[in-house]
Amino acid sequence: MAELMGKQTAKLQHPPQVESFAACVGKKEGEGPLGTLFDAVHRDDTLGQENWEKAESALFADAVTRCIDKAGLQPQQVRMLLGGDLLNQLAASSFAGRELGIPLLGLFGACSTMAESLLVGAMILEGGCADRVVCAASSHFCTAERQFRFPLELGTQRPPSAQWTVTGAGAVLLRSMAQDGAQTVLTHVTVGKPVDYGVTDANNMGAAMAPAACATITAHLRDTGRSPEDYDLIVTGDLGAVGSELLHQLLREEGISVAPERHLDCGLSIFSPQQDAHAGGSGCGCSASVLCAKLLPELAQGKLRRILFVATGALMSTTTGNEGESIPGIAHAAALERMMI
Amino acid sequence: MAELMGKQTAKLQHPPQVESFAACVGKKEGEGPLGTLFDAVHRDDTLGQENWEKAESALFADAVTRCIDKAGLQPQQVRMLLGGDLLNQLAASSFAGRELGIPLLGLFGACSTMAESLLVGAMILEGGCADRVVCAASSHFCTAERQFRFPLELGTQRPPSAQWTVTGAGAVLLRSMAQDGAQTVLTHVTVGKPVDYGVTDANNMGAAMAPAACATITAHLRDTGRSPEDYDLIVTGDLGAVGSELLHQLLREEGISVAPERHLDCGLSIFSPQQDAHAGGSGCGCSASVLCAKLLPELAQGKLRRILFVATGALMSTTTGNEGESIPGIAHAAALERMMI
Repeated sequence: MAELMGKQTAKLQHPPQVESFAACVGKKEGEGPLGTLFDAVHRDDTLGQENWEKAESALFADAVTRCIDKAGLQPQQVRMLLGGDLLNQLAASSFAGRELGIPLLGLFGACSTMAESLLVGAMILEGGCADRVVCAASSHFCTAERQFRFPLELGTQRPPSAQWTVTGAGAVLLRSMAQDGAQTVLTHVTVGKPVDYGVTDANNMGAAMAPAACATITAHLRDTGRSPEDYDLIVTGDLGAVGSELLHQLLREEGISVAPERHLDCGLSIFSPQQDAHAGGSGCGCSASVLCAKLLPELAQGKLRRILFVATGALMSTTTGNEGESIPGIAHAAALERMMI
Repeated sequence: MAELMGKQTAKLQHPPQVESFAACVGKKEGEGPLGTLFDAVHRDDTLGQENWEKAESALFADAVTRCIDKAGLQPQQVRMLLGGDLLNQLAASSFAGRELGIPLLGLFGACSTMAESLLVGAMILEGGCADRVVCAASSHFCTAERQFRFPLELGTQRPPSAQWTVTGAGAVLLRSMAQDGAQTVLTHVTVGKPVDYGVTDANNMGAAMAPAACATITAHLRDTGRSPEDYDLIVTGDLGAVGSELLHQLLREEGISVAPERHLDCGLSIFSPQQDAHAGGSGCGCSASVLCAKLLPELAQGKLRRILFVATGALMSTTTGNEGESIPGIAHAAALERMMI
């Protein structure tokens, strides 16, 4: 049984192992600084599909399939698929789930979905309700722009605070503790609360999400008695340039100082400044693909020893936006660690 | 640790207890056969809010708050809120979550969301990652019509196979086994797979969901070695008249015969034929409110001893519908039982 710590955190008694992982992205992401690290770069953003929604669904399925393949397993050996995306009614993951034939639990935490799926997956494994689960998330620039902002064909200008939705998917296969040796394990889960500072600008998601990131990091450190120095990296999902600066400011107000070299924002890592992505990458697929292409490999290689993965989401819809509602943010945190079992 | 049974089911070693529950509905539901059983009937479907989305969010929050109240607790004594709704980006539950201040895990299984939340909540409790969770779901006729079908103002005619989205919300507080005496507990979880028989008609959701209900019921009975006679009731979410008939036909093809008196469809229970709801009720709030207004009270009173709660969802979006995609269904099952602890 897990140990409850403070108000929002659980320390797992049997931390699940990361058995395999995969990240698949689009052309622009492949041309970015992490380009050589992805399992697949789809030069054709349609993935040969007839519309963007099917393309994203294929991207989601590609990441899940490669992840299961890399563990030398078949889909039917995976007990559950936990995942989500940004599309209305989770179209990408629901339709991918139909093709994959794995029992499916649909999750929605906006861009925090990759962390949410890792948390829920780890908690399910802790109780022995599954032996292997795949946790996954995806986003696609073209489906997101169409759904949340403007038709691409309009060529609408974007303000500097806008972020660029990543075309990408990541999948992580978690299993109950089984294999000896050096393993990457998920040790703590911190479930976040929605936090709303009244931001109403869908072109400034970083500002909407930073307060939630601050709240969850603060809760995690308070609950566990840890300090930022206990982590090689505190990884945020997709705060981008504006949100990251705000996060450090908010953390300082809580008395928490995170050294810049100890913070990595996935949204600031996936594109180079030359790629014209304004304030950085965003979307469920941003933190999902950076986790699976860069962070989990660096944990496996021993370059990183312990990280706190804090994906952040903006819980808005176009309807609530049109109705004048502000954008609540949410962030969930998973502590990942390399250890000898 | 739970015991894995077959491919899709887990038997919980420490079945969580249903500590309290609440159901809140709109005017039409209050005028139906279950009208006197709900905790609150909101005669004003707007709940005093300025738009339907805020109304649904208020309905969701009302059910959760009443549920926590009925257990004599405060929201901060609940470790997590697990829930969802049909709105794009889960607007109803996300915004309710913002008001309630409880750590939130957003779930989406279309109209199967109430079962999904019970399953995930029970699995989290099994591992000791929480001591108390609230599982909830909502839907609202006016938000659903606007989002999925036609503006209400058009007065569009509905075919006889169409179902009526329930304005309703249900919430269940689950706690780790703690209290002695007669208790309603959740003993088994069966996670469903998306199943698609090629139905493309958004006015015939029952037909889209019946194959998923059949698949999950079949999997549950096969995994557990139980027969339909082991349950006082097999409860489906919102198959309605068309889907229920189809379910019995599909089950017979699997060699499973469920006596009509042993099957209850929430969609066929919530409205009377005189209420002009065509093939019956639907929406996440349908199975959620019938569970919390009728089934859990009957378990508490000893009128029911053991039920299989199988909420069903149609994983469609308007975008995928417009793109010609068929509607995958999904169903998740929770076995609920009254027992002496």
